[in-house]
Amino acid sequence: MKTKERVLFVSLKLFNRFGEPNVTTLQIADEMNISPGNLYYHYKNKTEIINELYSRFETEMFDLLDVPDIDISIEDAWLFLHLLFECIARYQFLYKDLVNILHRYDKIKARYRRMLTRKQSAIAAVLGSFEQQDMLQASQTEMEALCENVVLSITCWPGYDLIRQGRDDDQIELAKGCYQIMAMVAPFLKESERAHLQQLSEAYV
Amino acid sequence: MKTKERVLFVSLKLFNRFGEPNVTTLQIADEMNISPGNLYYHYKNKTEIINELYSRFETEMFDLLDVPDIDISIEDAWLFLHLLFECIARYQFLYKDLVNILHRYDKIKARYRRMLTRKQSAIAAVLGSFEQQDMLQASQTEMEALCENVVLSITCWPGYDLIRQGRDDDQIELAKGCYQIMAMVAPFLKESERAHLQQLSEAYV
Repeated sequence: MKTKERVLFVSLKLFNRFGEPNVTTLQIADEMNISPGNLYYHYKNKTEIINELYSRFETEMFDLLDVPDIDISIEDAWLFLHLLFECIARYQFLYKDLVNILHRYDKIKARYRRMLTRKQSAIAAVLGSFEQQDMLQASQTEMEALCENVVLSITCWPGYDLIRQGRDDDQIELAKGCYQIMAMVAPFLKESERAHLQQLSEAYV
Repeated sequence: MKTKERVLFVSLKLFNRFGEPNVTTLQIADEMNISPGNLYYHYKNKTEIINELYSRFETEMFDLLDVPDIDISIEDAWLFLHLLFECIARYQFLYKDLVNILHRYDKIKARYRRMLTRKQSAIAAVLGSFEQQDMLQASQTEMEALCENVVLSITCWPGYDLIRQGRDDDQIELAKGCYQIMAMVAPFLKESERAHLQQLSEAYV
């Protein structure tokens, strides 16, 4: 691995483990066994590292959030949530200190709000597909509130789960996060779909 | 106001506005127009200030979370959520950087997990009262998942709302937070209660 790539790899590992605000470029250089000068040759400062990591995260997320216009099954939705959470877990440092990071990195702030909008559209597409297939019934008001609640959970579960478990490391219970979100959708599913989801839940969590 | 009390007042204001990790004791002294020495005479360091603020927050929250063993109406539940959110909003700095603060302040970490348990019991008591009055129907599994989702939302709404609105100040939309939580409970309410909640929601948000 080239040094430039290794800086990103090690930074991501340290940020995820200790929280971005608690990691300095000196610590990154130290962990890599390179001089600070060598690190600064590749990235002028922490902001450049964060921006590059965020760009990669954004590319991966937007790829996932581009929900295809096809019939989506309960299994598809579950897998979709799981892949989203896996991606978030890889860049979990962002979600652990979200308010703080967006406060300090202006460029990311504007981009992150676009991501929230994309999350909302993706969830609306999944729920809309359920509705079209007559698997789900909800008024427009219910649909909007549900959509917002699902996006909140996707955004906040990683941080909440670490607090809930009292863990200090980076082991987030992704399966439980998917389960909790599907539990919000369940009451709006038709009887047979709800039973099917119940079976999946028992097998999964 | 005595200086010792004024330190807390000003610290809370600055923490809420700029985020606790971004505020130093020097800035607090500066904002108060006192010397750092004067500040250190009352509080040895930021940790002491944080601990004192947390103790006050905890007392206020535990007071609210002590749900009386009576029949709770939809209106009561709504008011309860609103009071919880108002209390959280007063100490919102904790919720904006929750993972980070709990990571850095060990004492608060243990205490905060007790608060999560208390939140869970309080929400279970409210939902249990609905059930006893035959206003709500849910299996035990549904009840547990709902309870966890409500606690997650109470915990995460303040930070999420600021991001969602793209605001950098301390204006959280509390009413919308209550509405979103009640929307999670709604599908489990009996028809007449759900209609009643719908009316309240329209008047409130």
